[in-house]
Amino acid sequence: MANFKIRPAVSTDCDEIMRLVQELADFEKMPDGVKIDAEVLRKDGFGEEKWFDCLVVEPVPAEQTENGTPALIGYALWFYTYRTWYGRIMYMEDIYVQENRRKHGIGSALWKQSAKIGYDKGCRNIVWSCLDWNKSAICFYEAVGGADITVKEGWHTFRMEYPELKKFIGES
Amino acid sequence: MANFKIRPAVSTDCDEIMRLVQELADFEKMPDGVKIDAEVLRKDGFGEEKWFDCLVVEPVPAEQTENGTPALIGYALWFYTYRTWYGRIMYMEDIYVQENRRKHGIGSALWKQSAKIGYDKGCRNIVWSCLDWNKSAICFYEAVGGADITVKEGWHTFRMEYPELKKFIGES
Repeated sequence: MANFKIRPAVSTDCDEIMRLVQELADFEKMPDGVKIDAEVLRKDGFGEEKWFDCLVVEPVPAEQTENGTPALIGYALWFYTYRTWYGRIMYMEDIYVQENRRKHGIGSALWKQSAKIGYDKGCRNIVWSCLDWNKSAICFYEAVGGADITVKEGWHTFRMEYPELKKFIGES
Repeated sequence: MANFKIRPAVSTDCDEIMRLVQELADFEKMPDGVKIDAEVLRKDGFGEEKWFDCLVVEPVPAEQTENGTPALIGYALWFYTYRTWYGRIMYMEDIYVQENRRKHGIGSALWKQSAKIGYDKGCRNIVWSCLDWNKSAICFYEAVGGADITVKEGWHTFRMEYPELKKFIGES
């Protein structure tokens, strides 16, 4: 029997999801990167507008947090985007499984289950980002048919941060 | 008086937008990249679900296409995404102004007007992609406060194409 269970996230999972988001940021060597909290995640994912989709992973047998919500050991969070060349696209923002739970096929199962949801919604491909030093992730991606289009086609990602954005549009 | 007018796209603009999408793909040296047509764009942008937002640019005085719709000389097309570190994000998919119409501040006006819409929707930053050889675009981006996070932080973009996606999830 599998020692994990994948299910859609619900609003009461947000504290646990944010705990895992922080773990992933620590792993990515940017521990100060996370600027939002569970309250923001709850509002943006389970409020009036749905800004993302999310699957979560529970251990089997289940464990409880101090708040009485189910403990989580992984999550996948994505949203739908659009390319004028291909149409509907799935953008995988985060896939994370806690280190001591890896090598049980959880990451792979999470990828497949999310990808199926995107495919059923009409997405033509899946896009995601990865840090260039994260060789074990890159190995996995290439094994499942993902291509590094930064290397292959020269695509670089640019970001305008909040202070520059405000300045750019003339907001004080 | 400005010799252009920016306005939200409407469904009858889709033929003109796709003409410009193809021009941009030609400029990006991937003329075979475009796999969708105006019909798909119309359905995905102006149907039941709205997969993207779009502003278009008309010349002033206005010109007409053979179909009787307004001729367009540029467009900006974006969608809203989500980062677990920052929250709401605007992803600028395409900004394009026809070559013979450049140097009149159209691109800059398009950027500012779109960015304001994203800012008003609560976006914390804007993200976009650019080919590494497109030095004039990169110059503009850096001048307005955009940073190349592929160079700065090591983010590479990965893509799983349709055949690999189908194989991955076990669809024939």
